[in-house]
Parts: sequence; structure tokens; C-alpha cells
Amino acid sequence: MILTNAAPAQSLLSRLSTVANTRGLAAMAGRLSELSRWVALEMADFERELTVLPRGARVVQRSAHHLIDLGGKHLRPMCVALSSKLGSGFDEVGRRLALAVELVHSATLLHDDVIDMAATRRGAPAARMVYGNAASIFAGDWLLVEALRQIRRAGVEGLLDEMLAIIDEMILAESVQLEHRGEINGSRSDYFRVVEGKTAALFRWSMRAGARVGGLTDAECDALERYGLHLGVAFQAVDDVLDVDGDIEATGKQLFTDLREGKTTYPLILALERDPQLFGILADCARGLSPSAVHAVLESLRQTEAVIDCRRFAAEEAAAAIACLDRFGDSEAVRALVTVAEVSVVREA
Amino acid sequence: MILTNAAPAQSLLSRLSTVANTRGLAAMAGRLSELSRWVALEMADFERELTVLPRGARVVQRSAHHLIDLGGKHLRPMCVALSSKLGSGFDEVGRRLALAVELVHSATLLHDDVIDMAATRRGAPAARMVYGNAASIFAGDWLLVEALRQIRRAGVEGLLDEMLAIIDEMILAESVQLEHRGEINGSRSDYFRVVEGKTAALFRWSMRAGARVGGLTDAECDALERYGLHLGVAFQAVDDVLDVDGDIEATGKQLFTDLREGKTTYPLILALERDPQLFGILADCARGLSPSAVHAVLESLRQTEAVIDCRRFAAEEAAAAIACLDRFGDSEAVRALVTVAEVSVVREA
Repeated sequence: MILTNAAPAQSLLSRLSTVANTRGLAAMAGRLSELSRWVALEMADFERELTVLPRGARVVQRSAHHLIDLGGKHLRPMCVALSSKLGSGFDEVGRRLALAVELVHSATLLHDDVIDMAATRRGAPAARMVYGNAASIFAGDWLLVEALRQIRRAGVEGLLDEMLAIIDEMILAESVQLEHRGEINGSRSDYFRVVEGKTAALFRWSMRAGARVGGLTDAECDALERYGLHLGVAFQAVDDVLDVDGDIEATGKQLFTDLREGKTTYPLILALERDPQLFGILADCARGLSPSAVHAVLESLRQTEAVIDCRRFAAEEAAAAIACLDRFGDSEAVRALVTVAEVSVVREA
Repeated sequence: MILTNAAPAQSLLSRLSTVANTRGLAAMAGRLSELSRWVALEMADFERELTVLPRGARVVQRSAHHLIDLGGKHLRPMCVALSSKLGSGFDEVGRRLALAVELVHSATLLHDDVIDMAATRRGAPAARMVYGNAASIFAGDWLLVEALRQIRRAGVEGLLDEMLAIIDEMILAESVQLEHRGEINGSRSDYFRVVEGKTAALFRWSMRAGARVGGLTDAECDALERYGLHLGVAFQAVDDVLDVDGDIEATGKQLFTDLREGKTTYPLILALERDPQLFGILADCARGLSPSAVHAVLESLRQTEAVIDCRRFAAEEAAAAIACLDRFGDSEAVRALVTVAEVSVVREA
């Protein structure tokens, strides 16, 4: 088991920067380090905001902090910050909303890890392994309530209602996933319902929250929310690719973790459509992943070019996200959001 | 396993009325049926309000409805209704708030049953036994979010913040209980922290919500909230009595369910203070409840008069609740709240 220290806010960007560099994507590396410098202050502000969360002695609080202290990518807070910088900037209210979205995200991870019986998270033992399932369930509830209280205090009209609607969407998406758990479910519509609810919904809210903080118009808020939707879908499609074709050193996650947890990912859906024999192989995998089954799945993914097409799909979604920025003309903030969308596709972790 | 149909809103009152009658408490029976008639319209309105909750096909929604359709006592919604009737009455906003408090209560039951690995609830299989633990976790999350949305829509200044603070308190109380789970914990302060957070907090909110709907003054709202606190503590103390001295036919629950779930109840705390030998007996119980262990615990409870004193404590708390009504003079609403407090002590289920 790989244990990592709490990752600093900039870790995603610098890690990506290294990846981009070693792969010879020099231009991308340059833009990443530019983006990294450009939001460094805001992300440091957000890091300080994280310390607002009470550090009580209760096991529920320790369980929540165990997860939060492991860092994570902080991509949703970064969306709040960047979106706000399209307008008047990332202020105290923006920091509160960035905190809230990270807490909601953390709450879902705590509950997901209980449901998936996950042993590790962010390269360390999952909170449930340290403090137990019950503490993780209540810790998720606690973070959710803390997040909603932060949104209340931020006092931006409409954002609390929107977050409640988003959480509702997230839970119903979890429900769809749960109903098909352990099945080989080749349905694209189920897949997109889950991705839009579980992943993209919170990106949408992040972008809208930042836009509201920045004082943008309703039409601009809508455009940025659509950016969040496409970014979220692209992000998840790449997560799916990394599950079947990732470098374990970079991701810190074993290959086929989703498959082991009974979830059908997009590359597998594409491969199933093109290789009907894969169905039987995946059904066998449900009874345990043998080396020969893994080999057969990888071979099917290669022959059907499902991984390539899943990456292509992610690139299209990133392009759709970038197209939502058209109305804003050129600015540092726009260039930063373009970089985020592009990076979401080429990332290796 | 005893299966019951969904209990109608009035079932608690009529059941109690029967109990009171058969025990010769004719006066109490008369007042109960008076109370029952007096809030019948409001409780029927509340029942209709329950149908507002979306009946989707998702497993998470079916899991939530499984619990809600089993009825329950609806004591918290009744508190909202009665409290509002001290003022201008139970209107549309009051119904929404009554719905919200019942949904929060149901959310906690769904999560508690997962954590306690409970097989039954309200005399029927627990939702987790029908739809699984994961669905119950998400169903709890879903009901919580639906409840908060209802409070938002009700639009009464301050009530959402207060509910968020109450849920926070509930979760930290759950945490205290979790930390001592399976221990013989004779601490009164831990006991009261758990009871005030897990049980009394939601009664407090119910009373305040009704008072706000009825347009009462801040001082009146505070007094009714204190009524809710004492009522909640009395209610839990009687629950604790029923766990060690209840009639399984009436409660639908096996004796010593709390002990089996690793929770120390108030009669046991009182008995432990008076009979040091009980500690060893309870420690043995943690390894499984043998008939001889049950006999020894019952004997200790009898000799130490812990059950009698726990009922006396509940009666004192009910009296403290009733004292909070002093400022209101005499009215049907006040008499109804007096009856509720008295009934909470003599109830057998």
C-alpha cells in the first residue's frame, strides 16, 4: 500500500506539468505552469479556507479530516476560482463556495468508499479502514451539512437551492449505478445519466458558483455551467480510460478497479458494442479477475480501439467545454479554462 | 417476524387510548380521544403532504418509501401542528415543515438501521433487508436533501439554519454513541449528550417550527423549544424503559435490543451506579445474551429500582415540559400539549 502525504493544492498541476514535459508536450507544460502560477494565490487561499472546518475530537470529524487531509486534486474549487476570475475575482464568498463544493465532493467519496468497500483512497487507507464504516457514513452526512451551512453563509441567491437540486441528481445517479451493480450494463443512456449526475453535476455547480461570485450575467453563468458539464464528462471519460489503460505508478490505483466494483465504464461499453464476445468474458470477470480474463479484456479493448475512441470522446467533450467560452473573448481567465479542459484530456492521473 | 400494515396517523393515539383504558386510566383515555379528534384534520393534512415526496422508480426512492409507508408515530409532525395551533394555526407552510421533520427523522432511521444492522423496523423488515445497505445509505441522503428543500420552500426565516445546526448536533451525538459502542458506558454526561442530540434536538426544532408558523413571539418560540427538549428526553427515557421492561406484543420490539446493539440505556446506567456487580454481567452480555444473563440483568434492574426511577425521571421531564407552557394560559392547544407530555410517560409502545 502506497502512503502519500497530504498533497499540496498545486500538486495536480505540477504532476501534470511533469507528465506533459516527459511526453514532450512542451507547449502544454508551459501553459500548465503558467496556469499554476496564475491561480496559486487563489488555491493557497482555498487551502487556508479548508482549515475553517472544525477539527473536533469526535470520530466522525476525525474520519472526515482523514480524507480531506489527503489532499486530492481540488479541481472543483479551482473551477470556482477560475470562473470567478472571468468576472470580479475570487473573494471571501468565493472561498466559502469553493470550500463547500470540496466538502460535498468529499462527502460523496466517504459514502462511495463504504458502498464500494474500497480499501484505499488517494493512495492511502480509506477513512472506513481507519475509523470504520459507520463513522464514514456519519462523516459524509456531517460534511454535507457543513457544506450546506457554508453555502447559506455565503448568501448568494439561488446557490443553495441549486446545490440541493444537484445533490438530489447525484443521489439518483448513484441509484442507477447501484441498480446495475455487478451486471454487465452496456447501456449508454444509463452510463451518461450516472456520469452527468455523479461527476458533471458538481462541476456545473462549481462553474456557476464562481460565475455568480464574479458578478457575471445570467447568460454568462449558463454558458459556464455548460462548460462545467462538458468538463465533467470529459474528466470522467478519462478516469474510465485510466481504469483500463492507466499507469498504476501515476494513478496510484490498480487497473480495473471499476470493473471489480461492478461498474461498466465507457471504454467497456464501446468495446461491448463492437465485440459481442466480450460480454461473456466480462461476465466471467464478475466471478473474479483472473490474469487470463484481464488479458482477454485488454485484447478486446485494443482490437476494438475502444480506449482510443474513449480518449477521442473525452477530447470532443473538452472541445465542447472550450466552445462555451466563445462569448467571453480572450483573457487570462479564458486561457486558463481552456488549459484546464485540455489538461483534463491528456492527464495520466 | 410481525408484519404490520402502514399505521394511520391516528394509530398512536388510539393505541394509547386503548392502553390507558385497559389500565383503568379512564381520564387519560378521555383526554387522548379528545386530543385525537382535535388534531385529526391536521394529521390527515400531514398524511396527504407525505404524498408530495416523489415516488420514483429508483431503488433509493423505493427504499425510502418502504420506511415511510410503514407509518410510524408521526409525533414530530404532531408537535409542529400542535405548536402552530397555539398561534394562528397549521397552514400550508406548517404542513411543509411537518413533512420536513418527518423526512429528517426517517433519514436518521435509515442510516441507523444500516449501522445497527437492524433486521426489523416498525414491525416489518427494515429497508436495508429489502433493498440493501447501499440503497438505505443513499435513501437517507436523499430524504435529508428532500427535507432541506421543503424547508427552503417553506421560506420561514432562520428555520433552515436551525435545522442544519440540529442535524450537525444529531451527527455528533451519533458519533459519541459510536465511540462507546459495545462498551458498558455508565457516563450520564455521554448519555444525555446522545439523547439531547439524537432525540430531543428534532423535537425542539418541531416545536419551534410550529411556533414560527403560528406567528408566536421569540420568547414564546423559545419556551416551546424548551418544551420540545424536555418532551424528547422524556420520550427517550420511556423508550429506554420499554427496551428493558416493555411488552413485546405492544412494542413490536424484542427486549434488550439496545443492549444487543451495544448501547447503554438510562435504566442500566442507574442500575450500574447502584449495583457494581452488574458491570460484569453486562460485560458478559456483550459476548451474547444468554437466558441466565437476561435473568441477572432483570434481577438487578428490579433490586435497584432502576426502571421505577427511570419512569420517575421521564415523568419529571414531562413535568418540566408542561411547565414551559405556563406563559400561555389555558387553551385547547395548551391542554393538547399537556396531554402529549403526560402520554409520552405512560405509553407502552
